[in-house]
Amino acid sequence: MKAEIITVGTELLLGQITNTNSRDLASFLASEGIFLYYQSTVGDNEDRLAEVLRTALSRSDLILLCGGLGPTSDDITRETVAKVLGLPLEKDHSWEKHLEEFFKRRGRPFAGINRRQAMVPRGGRLLPNHRGTAPGLYIHHKLKHIFLLPGPPRELVPLLQEQVMPLLGSIRQGSGEKREFLVTKILRVTGIGEGEIEEKLSSLISTQGNPTIAPLAKGMEVHLRLTARAPSAEEGRLMIAEKKDEICRILKNQVYGEDEETLELVVARLLWQKKLTLALAESCTGGLITHRLTNIPNSSAFLLAGLVTYSNEAKVKLLGVEPAVLAREGAVSREVALAMARGVKDSCQASMGLAVTGIAGPGGATREKPVGLVHMALAGEEGKFFHKKHLFWGERELIKLRTSQAALDLLRNYLMRGDVY
Amino acid sequence: MKAEIITVGTELLLGQITNTNSRDLASFLASEGIFLYYQSTVGDNEDRLAEVLRTALSRSDLILLCGGLGPTSDDITRETVAKVLGLPLEKDHSWEKHLEEFFKRRGRPFAGINRRQAMVPRGGRLLPNHRGTAPGLYIHHKLKHIFLLPGPPRELVPLLQEQVMPLLGSIRQGSGEKREFLVTKILRVTGIGEGEIEEKLSSLISTQGNPTIAPLAKGMEVHLRLTARAPSAEEGRLMIAEKKDEICRILKNQVYGEDEETLELVVARLLWQKKLTLALAESCTGGLITHRLTNIPNSSAFLLAGLVTYSNEAKVKLLGVEPAVLAREGAVSREVALAMARGVKDSCQASMGLAVTGIAGPGGATREKPVGLVHMALAGEEGKFFHKKHLFWGERELIKLRTSQAALDLLRNYLMRGDVY
Repeated sequence: MKAEIITVGTELLLGQITNTNSRDLASFLASEGIFLYYQSTVGDNEDRLAEVLRTALSRSDLILLCGGLGPTSDDITRETVAKVLGLPLEKDHSWEKHLEEFFKRRGRPFAGINRRQAMVPRGGRLLPNHRGTAPGLYIHHKLKHIFLLPGPPRELVPLLQEQVMPLLGSIRQGSGEKREFLVTKILRVTGIGEGEIEEKLSSLISTQGNPTIAPLAKGMEVHLRLTARAPSAEEGRLMIAEKKDEICRILKNQVYGEDEETLELVVARLLWQKKLTLALAESCTGGLITHRLTNIPNSSAFLLAGLVTYSNEAKVKLLGVEPAVLAREGAVSREVALAMARGVKDSCQASMGLAVTGIAGPGGATREKPVGLVHMALAGEEGKFFHKKHLFWGERELIKLRTSQAALDLLRNYLMRGDVY
Repeated sequence: MKAEIITVGTELLLGQITNTNSRDLASFLASEGIFLYYQSTVGDNEDRLAEVLRTALSRSDLILLCGGLGPTSDDITRETVAKVLGLPLEKDHSWEKHLEEFFKRRGRPFAGINRRQAMVPRGGRLLPNHRGTAPGLYIHHKLKHIFLLPGPPRELVPLLQEQVMPLLGSIRQGSGEKREFLVTKILRVTGIGEGEIEEKLSSLISTQGNPTIAPLAKGMEVHLRLTARAPSAEEGRLMIAEKKDEICRILKNQVYGEDEETLELVVARLLWQKKLTLALAESCTGGLITHRLTNIPNSSAFLLAGLVTYSNEAKVKLLGVEPAVLAREGAVSREVALAMARGVKDSCQASMGLAVTGIAGPGGATREKPVGLVHMALAGEEGKFFHKKHLFWGERELIKLRTSQAALDLLRNYLMRGDVY
């Protein structure tokens, strides 16, 4: 089955929004093992939409149209598709009733214009949308399978899973098509650049067989996307697991997580397991490490406090850093990082204190201390202390991000192995 | 002149990356006042790319192809375009020399495969790319204008400005085409929802003349994009300025900035101007407010410290909140917010103290204090105190974001008007 995507919307042609729907539809088809050969985008224009649809009907079996199902006059996808296929539009009374109630509950008038959203091309099937007023539509016409789907991403994505996926399953079962399964997994790698990863994995990547390995740099970490094609999902998962083991043998614990596992989540899990508490002292990251950790629900179980001590006075007063040390070594130094970690641990009575101090730029650099220089320190249990020095490159926000990543990774290493080197 | 975009890359068809190039190319054409009617995406496949290109040649005057110019064997755009147009590829010796030196400087071998990037279809023009090895190409063939552009966004975007824009200018001058200018401006609005804005501006939006007004909800604020079409850039700017005044008369100071001005930047400017210092006490936002303010270069001039007091103990110890008040009112209360603001102001000896305390969820809610309840307080100069209570909806990260936005906006109002209501 050959698939094609058509996204509709003048805002896309003006470059006012990014077409995430094309990506989400493509990724959905890939995960279903369906081959996608073309994506097209047209504006809210009947003639051009009709032309693009006719081309798609001439070369593809499955056509997913997205957008242009709204109630206003520039939404013309439903009417144009019906016209091209030569099908009259008929009212779905149950959806019309649903719409009427929807508007009534919200105390909004149910205008005639809204009734268009209850119209279905003859023989078509309405796919209820519980997150908006425009339902999806499915039409099977002259051996072609055509889906019309709403444009708002928060309506589209659930509809794909809840309605389109099972329907595609029965379509393919009916046609006796042998299904190929695509199984993907993302390995999240930190503390090593994309180039170095490609070098280390060159023997695995260059063969580019099945599963494939695609590295993607994410600013502060690298994602390795493994994709296996297999006759069953179970076999695909097995192939992925084997390839993952090969990669982990090479990259070792620089692979910190999988799929949606963020570094802050991995660190939070370790802290929960070990029932440890943490206090943070941040300078150049300006609260970003604390922000990332507090994005995790229930982080209050381990995080006692995060002190952003931007000024020297705050470092002295809140963390007990000696003014003499600040004067002698400067705020961005090994000694101050260690004093900050010790100070925040003690003042918050936490199991651990983590501290960073650095120069995020663009100002504040000297010949000896360039933009991107960062000292970080960890005051662990039983009086253990660790220190690391980094030199990051990039703009201010990227330096903040990379520093927060390295600090969280230092903490992860300490929690996993009791060491950071 | 009718334009069309073709993006090339199998990774796009697999949904592995988002097609930001289509958006950037579209937005570039819009700003040049060129009508774009179609966008297509195909994989690295000669037959299908040739088919899509032939269709484009049959209906458009200007065709921008992007991607597939790399050195590896799956990069086939250059060769396929030459084949479809019936033009032989010829070597550009000066670019070949440039590539040789490029590889030599990096100590990398200059393989035969890299020489392909010095090939130009006969009669075509090479557009030097200073950020990568694949140059852009421009071909004028049988009245059609065809551009081949590199896929990496950090190479594409500068090439559009530096090479494509001036070339388009002379193409259109040569053809005697009258240029229409598109001028756009974004007004950034906070503290009011998209629906309420549309209602208030309905008389302006419904006329939808020139300039157009397009509202776009951004989670924590709304962007109003004004777009004017005019015979000159100057006239366009004037039309935008008039429409902006009309909008500001209705929305008043809820319009806080324009284009790239973030709320944190606006607040930072006010603090610099007034030479005031600030200390923050955050609970539910977990450092996000401090993080946003420290994204601004030179924020150290006003920001003394940000204390994320997640635990009750930290609120007592670091901010001097009375344990009795915490016990009586609970951590999420007007009284604790005010005590936190006062405490952080005093302990950091800042001109102002800003504090937030709330329930970001998903846990921690009670019948009286639901998820999304937030109290914020400002301790201003001369013993002035302000308090605001909010109820935000959404997931944990969205509640954090909306709270940080409301707190920064409270500060902005105080700094501009000496009041927050």
